[in-house]
Amino acid sequence: MSLPVSPLAPKMMPAMPVVQGVRMAAGEAGIKYKGRTDALLMVFDEGTHAACVTTRSKAPSAPVDWCREVAHHGKARALVVNAGNANAFTGRKGVEATTATAEAAAALVGCKPQDVFLASTGVIGEPLPYAKLVAALPGLDAALQHDAWVMAAQAIMTTDTFPKYATRKVGGAVINGIAKGSGMIAPDMATMLAFIATDAEIAPHLLQGMLERATVKSFNCTTVDGDTSTSDTALLFATGKVKLSAKELELFERELDALCVELAQQIVRDGEGARKFIAIHVRGAEDDDAARKVGLAIANSPLVKTAIAGEDANWGRIVMAVGKSGEKADRDTLEVAIGGVVIAKDGERVEGYDEAPVAQHVRGSEIEISVDLHVGEGVATVWTCDLTHGYIDINAHYRS
Amino acid sequence: MSLPVSPLAPKMMPAMPVVQGVRMAAGEAGIKYKGRTDALLMVFDEGTHAACVTTRSKAPSAPVDWCREVAHHGKARALVVNAGNANAFTGRKGVEATTATAEAAAALVGCKPQDVFLASTGVIGEPLPYAKLVAALPGLDAALQHDAWVMAAQAIMTTDTFPKYATRKVGGAVINGIAKGSGMIAPDMATMLAFIATDAEIAPHLLQGMLERATVKSFNCTTVDGDTSTSDTALLFATGKVKLSAKELELFERELDALCVELAQQIVRDGEGARKFIAIHVRGAEDDDAARKVGLAIANSPLVKTAIAGEDANWGRIVMAVGKSGEKADRDTLEVAIGGVVIAKDGERVEGYDEAPVAQHVRGSEIEISVDLHVGEGVATVWTCDLTHGYIDINAHYRS
Repeated sequence: MSLPVSPLAPKMMPAMPVVQGVRMAAGEAGIKYKGRTDALLMVFDEGTHAACVTTRSKAPSAPVDWCREVAHHGKARALVVNAGNANAFTGRKGVEATTATAEAAAALVGCKPQDVFLASTGVIGEPLPYAKLVAALPGLDAALQHDAWVMAAQAIMTTDTFPKYATRKVGGAVINGIAKGSGMIAPDMATMLAFIATDAEIAPHLLQGMLERATVKSFNCTTVDGDTSTSDTALLFATGKVKLSAKELELFERELDALCVELAQQIVRDGEGARKFIAIHVRGAEDDDAARKVGLAIANSPLVKTAIAGEDANWGRIVMAVGKSGEKADRDTLEVAIGGVVIAKDGERVEGYDEAPVAQHVRGSEIEISVDLHVGEGVATVWTCDLTHGYIDINAHYRS
Repeated sequence: MSLPVSPLAPKMMPAMPVVQGVRMAAGEAGIKYKGRTDALLMVFDEGTHAACVTTRSKAPSAPVDWCREVAHHGKARALVVNAGNANAFTGRKGVEATTATAEAAAALVGCKPQDVFLASTGVIGEPLPYAKLVAALPGLDAALQHDAWVMAAQAIMTTDTFPKYATRKVGGAVINGIAKGSGMIAPDMATMLAFIATDAEIAPHLLQGMLERATVKSFNCTTVDGDTSTSDTALLFATGKVKLSAKELELFERELDALCVELAQQIVRDGEGARKFIAIHVRGAEDDDAARKVGLAIANSPLVKTAIAGEDANWGRIVMAVGKSGEKADRDTLEVAIGGVVIAKDGERVEGYDEAPVAQHVRGSEIEISVDLHVGEGVATVWTCDLTHGYIDINAHYRS
């Protein structure tokens, strides 16, 4: 199935610079798709540290189990990713597949299997034909290059309609990230697949904390359909080639956050069937976590999402979603705005409310919803997309 | 907007007997709809007790606030319901509307306003033109009759495509119930609107407990779209005309449970855009509450619901939904069956799985999903419907 590119895809994409100490190659392992790349090998120089955040799903995939296990070492020499099969709910065969893949990659790279990270995305429950993946690795190893980030982002796509990548600079260091995802997106702890690499030197314990904090504010603030994947994995690799000052290290964390938000937004912009990108700003919640939950309650409401799809400024459904979030809220202090126009406050519609500018706003493709609960200081921004016939077409017919 | 009757509507509906001590009338108040009934007055003989369960939404409607307040008395003489406007998020005007309506009904019936229960369903955020409702009450009062249950069920419909009602007998007593709802259905504590009346004599404290227990096993086990209404209200009235033995009282509770399940299923069968009725049986959860949550995670998953809509026996998405539920689960003991055919157990697909009979089953309109977590003794059954283009059509264009 080939889908047209999402109308919400970014109009401009960055040129991706080289990250010192990182080489990669993409190729066709033929696991499910024909005539497109579906396998990625990334190789890191010795001395590379890794941070790892994975799904909170109680039914994680075999590669998620593998990453959790090897992440304890905090070191990385290689990453192998395949698209088309998630290697999830595959029992013993799943473990066989991860072990064989890591061993094959380790033999090529000259490292321990424990230095190899793995990720798989695609259909759940079918055994991964890992022999095909293993057979593709020598060719990938022979083709490694520094400058192949866009190809890498393309190789990990499933129902994605455009490759997702972003880059930042801090001092002399580069941070590059790629991601995939467009359905089964409601990351809980980490998201879909996101792989970030930097040539900065960062201690392993700092690296892990940075990735965890960035994840909460980016991937975990997005939702396409409220369905949390079995395979969500975010990895951050630091090759240690570039030393940063203490001040640059602070800047690094800010830039990492921004890069993660950019990748997360790209995923939402490729939400299955999406025609509108929706940013939901929540203020005045009990705390930031409560604000995020209220935002996600709105973002996951099929009634809100279909109203936006229908270009209906149906703010009553936003009130409904705030009410069902379970977080502290007071109907009589609630304030709702769409496109910057305050529609309701103090528990009722504002006097003389004119729907015309709001109706105009929801006919656009970039929608802004603001909610102020007026019960505390918590803030969060959450991103989602509308729910359209396209989502149903894709998911009634694609076996993911 | 007039929708065709849901293809999942029950083929047979019961004749509704009289409940001694209950009279009712339906009429046109013209609140929103033209050419159809939208107002219901129900009057109870003196000595009627009432039990009340309402939404847990943090943004409840004005009539929900009213019912919570008057339910403390445990007595009821009248019920006024309107369709077309939910009187939710309407601030002071909402309170004005409930007070005026209750006072008008009380004057007609000859009771206190506190003996009048109220419910409203329809659009959120627009002031209820209660003068129209109040003006309709004398006509309704003059038309009261014992035998108008189906008309009553029709008068409370919004996007419903068929009226919902059920009846049971215990000893010499009758239990009749009517309900409405087809979208914004994910009851949390109570559901949509459900009004149940019996001529049995039941003490107020018993009545409340019975309604609460029945609600947990019926309305709270259903979902159409995961969106909890601001207006969910279930009321149970007992006129006290028929005395029951202790044994009959036990039977009464069982029959009340069954009646609530029947009404709840009717709501799901009228789920917006529904083409398939889905029963999800969960066993082996940590406890019954965990089983219900796992069931609802499956039932609320848009990926599961679109797969069923597409007649795809995509059990991997069921595994995903179990994983995201947050409840205790062990991937390696999980068992999944569709249409009675075990597809996966012990963490992987069963050897020699033949999809043909399962594919046949999902082409039908009554779908059975069974999940055994094998981690405890908890059981629950949850009911939902598929997610189709019809849901999006209805909700992109109906302002509820």
